[in-house]
This record gives sequence, C-alpha cells and structure tokens, in this order.
Amino acid sequence: MPVLKKVLIIGGGFVGLNAAKGLGNVKGVDVTLIDRNNYHLFQPLLYQVAMAALSSAEIAVPLRSLLSRYKNIRILQGEALSLDPEKKSVTTDIGRFDYDILIIACGSRHTYFGNEKWEPHAPGLKTLEQATEIRRRVLSAFERAEAEADADKMTRHLTFVVVGGGPTGVEIAGALGELSRFTLAKDFKAIDPTLSRVILIEAGPRILPSFSKKLSQKAARDLEKLGVEIWTSRRVTDITPSSIELGEERILASTVIWAAGVQASGIEMPDQIQTGPQKKIVVEKDLSLKTHPDIFVAGDQAHFSDDSGIPLPGLAPVAQQQGEFLARLIKREIKGKPRESFHYKNRGQLATIGRSRAILDFGWIKCSGFIAWLLWAVIHIYFIIGFQNRMVVMLRWASSYLSFRKGARLVVNKTWRFYGKGNQLSENPDSRSLKPEIEGGSP
Amino acid sequence: MPVLKKVLIIGGGFVGLNAAKGLGNVKGVDVTLIDRNNYHLFQPLLYQVAMAALSSAEIAVPLRSLLSRYKNIRILQGEALSLDPEKKSVTTDIGRFDYDILIIACGSRHTYFGNEKWEPHAPGLKTLEQATEIRRRVLSAFERAEAEADADKMTRHLTFVVVGGGPTGVEIAGALGELSRFTLAKDFKAIDPTLSRVILIEAGPRILPSFSKKLSQKAARDLEKLGVEIWTSRRVTDITPSSIELGEERILASTVIWAAGVQASGIEMPDQIQTGPQKKIVVEKDLSLKTHPDIFVAGDQAHFSDDSGIPLPGLAPVAQQQGEFLARLIKREIKGKPRESFHYKNRGQLATIGRSRAILDFGWIKCSGFIAWLLWAVIHIYFIIGFQNRMVVMLRWASSYLSFRKGARLVVNKTWRFYGKGNQLSENPDSRSLKPEIEGGSP
Repeated sequence: MPVLKKVLIIGGGFVGLNAAKGLGNVKGVDVTLIDRNNYHLFQPLLYQVAMAALSSAEIAVPLRSLLSRYKNIRILQGEALSLDPEKKSVTTDIGRFDYDILIIACGSRHTYFGNEKWEPHAPGLKTLEQATEIRRRVLSAFERAEAEADADKMTRHLTFVVVGGGPTGVEIAGALGELSRFTLAKDFKAIDPTLSRVILIEAGPRILPSFSKKLSQKAARDLEKLGVEIWTSRRVTDITPSSIELGEERILASTVIWAAGVQASGIEMPDQIQTGPQKKIVVEKDLSLKTHPDIFVAGDQAHFSDDSGIPLPGLAPVAQQQGEFLARLIKREIKGKPRESFHYKNRGQLATIGRSRAILDFGWIKCSGFIAWLLWAVIHIYFIIGFQNRMVVMLRWASSYLSFRKGARLVVNKTWRFYGKGNQLSENPDSRSLKPEIEGGSP
Repeated sequence: MPVLKKVLIIGGGFVGLNAAKGLGNVKGVDVTLIDRNNYHLFQPLLYQVAMAALSSAEIAVPLRSLLSRYKNIRILQGEALSLDPEKKSVTTDIGRFDYDILIIACGSRHTYFGNEKWEPHAPGLKTLEQATEIRRRVLSAFERAEAEADADKMTRHLTFVVVGGGPTGVEIAGALGELSRFTLAKDFKAIDPTLSRVILIEAGPRILPSFSKKLSQKAARDLEKLGVEIWTSRRVTDITPSSIELGEERILASTVIWAAGVQASGIEMPDQIQTGPQKKIVVEKDLSLKTHPDIFVAGDQAHFSDDSGIPLPGLAPVAQQQGEFLARLIKREIKGKPRESFHYKNRGQLATIGRSRAILDFGWIKCSGFIAWLLWAVIHIYFIIGFQNRMVVMLRWASSYLSFRKGARLVVNKTWRFYGKGNQLSENPDSRSLKPEIEGGSP
C-alpha cells in the first residue's frame, strides 16, 4: 500500500480551489487547504460589489460548502507566516503544518510603487473589505454633496478619479459614470448630475493595453458616452485626502480609487527562492521551484513564462488552469508517471463598460457593444460559484437592468463602535457613522 | 394661499418612512427626513443577517429610492444632536434645521441595565453593523473550534449563550441551534456537532412572556428539539470575554449575544420633556408632547399608553401605524380640522423558531409549527421593502430550505486595515483578519 501523500495548499483562490477539487476523494492523498478567509472570492465581479450592484455574499462562497463532499480535504482558516523547505513545514497562526507537496497560491495585492502613504486616500480593490470601503466612500460622497450648499465643495465631492486604465480601472470608471449620470440622478434632489466628473488616469498611451488598439478605442468611446474623461500618458505625483496631483496639474476630488499596479502577496520565503518582477516567484515549466521540486507556486503569485518568453497575465482562467494542472500532476506522480509542462489555453479576454456595453477578444472573434455585454453576462453567470448565487446574481442583474437601479446601495459603517465610551450623544453603536475619516478640508 | 408647512422627521425607521410616504406630494407640506444611515432597515429580519441566512442588502433599502418619487421630500444623511423647542430648530452634524412640525422617531437600542462594560463581550442586535459583528463571531467560533486540538477549548468555542427570552432571543437561539446541529455539521470535519451547546437565559419564569402560556411552552419544546437549553428565572451577574456568570454558576463560552433589554435612543432633550420607563418620552393621545404640541414622538422612542393604561410594545406594526397616523393628522391640521387620538390595531404577533417552525397569535387564531412558519414567511416577504428584495429573499429562503445551507456564510473582517503599518507580514490589508479581538484565554 502506498504511503499517504500530504498535500498542503496555501490560498483558496482559483488555484487552490481547483487543485483541491481535482484531488478530492483521490486515494493516497490527504489535502489541507489554509486560507486567511473562510470563503472563495469570485474576483472578476469584485468591482460590482464596490459599485453597489452586488452584495458580498453574491460573489463569495464559503470554501467549506464548496468542498464539503470530499472526505480527504481539511479546510482551515488561518494565515501562513513562514516556510521551512528543509523541514518541509509551514508555520501559520494556527499552528505548524508538515507537507510532502506544497502548493502556494496567495494571489496579489495592489502596490503604490513606493508611495504606500497614498493608500489611505486611494484604496485599491483586491478584497471584499476594500470593495465595501470603496462603496462606502462613493455613496458617502453623494450623500455629502446632497447636504452641501457650497458649490466648490459639492463639485469636489462629485469628482471621482480612477488611477489605472487596465480592465479593473475601466470597469470601475464605467460603473461610476453610469452611477452618477443615471442611477443616482433621480434619487438626489439637490445634486446636478452634470456636475459630477469621473476621470480615468492611465500612465501609458492608451487604456486596456492588453486588448487590440481597435477594441481599446471602442472602449474609450463607450466610456466617454458615460461621461468619463480619459487622461492617458499622465503620471500621478501626489495624492492627498482631497486632491490628486499630476505634475503641475491638481484635481480636487474627495474620492480616488487605485487600480494601477499589483504585486504578489504571500508568505515569507527563504532567501534562496528566486523572485521576478512584481515580487512574483519564478517557477519552472511544471510550476515547481527550481531549488525545491516539492513546492509549487501558481496564480498571480507565480512568474511563469511560456515558450514565447512572455509572462502569463494575472487572470482567473490562468489560475484555474494551473490549479487543475497541479491536481493532474500530483495524481500522475502518485502513479509514478513523469511530470509534464504547463501550457495556458488562452480562451480570450473581456471587459465591461457600464450597464450594457463590453469589449470581447476571443482570438477567433472580437466584438463590442451590447452583444459583447450579453456574452460577458452569460459567461460570468456561468462561471460564478454556487448554484444559488448564480440565480440570485442573474435575478439582481435582470432587475437592475430593467429598473436602472442598483441593488445594494447601502452605506454601512466602516467600524463598529461600542457603547459608553463617550457622552450621551455617541452612545449608540452606529452613531456618527459618516464622519468622513479620510476627508480633507471640507466639513 | 396657505403658508408652506415645514415638517422635519428625525429617523427613517417604520415611523419616519410611513409618515414621509403619507405626506409625499401633499400640497402645502415640505418634508425633510434626516437619518444617520442612508437606508431603511427591515428590523424584523435583522437576526437572519446575524445568523448568516440573509445579506445586509436584502433587508435594507436606501431611503432615497423608497421616496424618490415624492418631489416635496428631501432626504439627508446626518445625525440629530440637540433640539431647541423655543426656536423650533434641530441642530445636526450637517447643519441646523427649522421646523413647523417635528417628528422624532429614533427607535431604541439595547441596554445592559448599568453593566455597559459587558457590551464588548455580549453585543446586542439593533443595527446592521451589530448583525455583521455577531455573524463574524459565530462563524469565527466554528472556524476556531475546527482548528482546535484541545477538547476543553473546542467546547468553549462551541458554546453559545443568548441572554433574553423575548422574540429576538428566541429567534437567535433557534437559528443557532439549527446552524450548529444541521447546517454547519457537514461542512466541518473535526467538529462533533453534538459538542455544541446553545443556552437561552431568561430572567422571568418563561420565555416569550408576551405570548400565551401555551404558545410559549410550544416554542420552548421546539427550541429543545433544536438542542437549545432553556434556563429560566436566572439572572446574569457577570460577563467576561470567555465566560458568563449566573450567581455561583459559570458557563465557559466564547460567544454571548445580548437580547435582554432595550431603551429609547435619541437626541438630547430639553429638561422639561418628561421621560418614562426605559428613557422613553411620554406622549399624549395624539403622540405630541404635552408641553409642545408641534413636536411628536413615536415608535420605540415613545411611551404611549392607550385607554387600558398598558404601554404599547416596541414592534414594527405599532411604529408603522403611528407613522401613518401622523401623516393623516398633519394633512387634517392643514385643512383646519381637529386632532384625533391614536389607536393601535393589534393584528397579532409572531415568532419563528429555526428553519420551519413558528408560533403565531393573531387573537382570532393561534397556531404553531410548520403552518405558522409558512404564514410567518409569507407575511415577512409581503412586508419586506422593495420588490427586488422580496424576490431575492424568497429565492434565497426557498433555496436554503431545500438545500439546508445558509446563503451568506462569510466571515468578513471587522476592520479594514491599511498597508505599511507593520512588518512585511502584515502588509496586506486583509491579513491577520481573524485574530479574535474580543476573546479571552484561548489562543
């Protein structure tokens, strides 16, 4: 009888989930999956939570329910802290775990290229908490504008700047344009919707550089129809609580959202492990480390170049295919078969602009407009995790499409306060909720 | 032409929403509604958010969308601070507002009868933030139990104490019993579901004292079937982060939920205004103040006794009828008609126990069990605000009823952290999310 192989997976994203599924109920394998959250997040729709179109629970599903049918998978909520490749163990905040095979896939986080002090004024969008925070800021800006008599201050509250013209930045800017021009216009009585500005800033010469020039131009025109100003070839030089600077130029804006750069997250690695650009870990053709063939790194955290030498992008399909590949590789290895190389099957890319437009590049077909948006919606509903969520998301989209309303437009407090700390007036846990904690000169 | 009457409403709960609706597009009336949140909360289902069955957005709807069709209603997000009845103005954190007629309906909050220091260890359930916090604690307790090797510590994580045997306490205890015995049992591999304990503590001789003795006994039996222990005639003497004391007796429990007492919330009142029990404001038969007939107080914040001398309970139907009554009264007053007295039409009361049982007392009919539960579900879906939410809640209930799963079982971090405050390991905004901030001796 073969010895039980202990597979330890750090991270329950697309890599971890698919690797675990592939190893589910496989004899001779014992899987432990550790994630700092208890849920798998459907990242591609995270911006819809930030833009108040979906609720957190609609794009996140507990890892336990996704994997509950597999007897050989243990799921733990914890945070990996450090790795000892010689002892073959990972230390976490809930204890030490030994492994025979280790899969590390902690994803990425955004980076400010050395200006981390901008972070409080310009949050990024990688986690559910960040999405909720961005939603709070955007909706609060409208609420403050509604109560503001001074026109200058009102304009500042209604100016939204998105930094970064990749798919996330474009999707946020499109949703913001739509939100301020159409969705919220009829709810607010004092706000003139034409006063609101949405500015998308891109350092390169055009938005969506990974798409063809033609589709990128189409997306720019679609964004402009939603009132979004596109500023290309501009670099951010400073961000304060109430403004953003681009060299000599200064824009007064209460809300800035950062979608400009990412780098790998992850645990502390021994020195001998080689990192590439964006702190990603350089992996071999089979996703293992050159120095440690029993350690695999995949997804956004890995720097993998295929035969053409171009590194793979940080997309959900890449991570998904890598997770499935690793499960296959481990099953083959148990049977004594040799390792194969990973090959990414590029099935295309998509970006959506506002409520009913998208651009789509599947290689064999490129299209834009409403048809592309419909395809976008179908694909996302199909791939979203969990049957119940699929139905709920579809219903919500259909309903907001028809009614032009957003579903989850609540400002929920950032922090939960206890009683009895202050005077009588702040006794309530939810009092003073909207004091703009990160806001500048304006009241 | 008559002078425009300025009606100022503080609070967007059932009173404020219904008063505003009743005055919507009424000529000669100008309405300003101020709430510290931008949404109306459907309080009766709040415990379902705490018990991970519904998402926040499913029981809360932005006040703006509920009232957007009325041209004469202005909605502002702000917090009322103090009242000057002589100058007829209310000071808020977003400015001062004058009124001709003032409606105050700020609801209630829970009270610890002088032991406010228990609050961090035993949160109450009155706001969305509190519901999210209770959910985080309950689900985290299961996650920690799953990772715990020590049997004593595991038991402590799996012990849930609910203080207060009113409808809220009963509904929470029932949902907890079901969650630990059935819903989560198959998701967690290491936890023995029979180890989990749910204890409901009531100071009086029986739970649900507002219902008949027979229905109260039926509810107790239903709770016991879900594994809930009911301890009546017991008083809490101390609560710590990891235990609760009842005189000599001590229970080790990581999670304690407070559903034992409420008192009126609200703004600072001038001294001459009379308050009754639970800090409620004593109102006349027309809900106005004896000293100031232009000020009305209603809902949970008001102490109103009808002809029988019994004060009205803090229930949604009471608040709703009072809001409608006030709108009618103001419309009559504009036409020069005299004021009438408020009479509460008691349409009955309901409480649900777990997934498919309820008790129901409509006066002309009393029932319990599955039929009562179906009626409970239909009534709540009917009264929930907003068509879209009604559909989504129905779908989610149907689906979790069939699949025995909970829809929104995510542990989302309590606070959102910024980068760069600590060392490399805590760089990520969502790192170290589950460090039990309010937990005692156990790791």
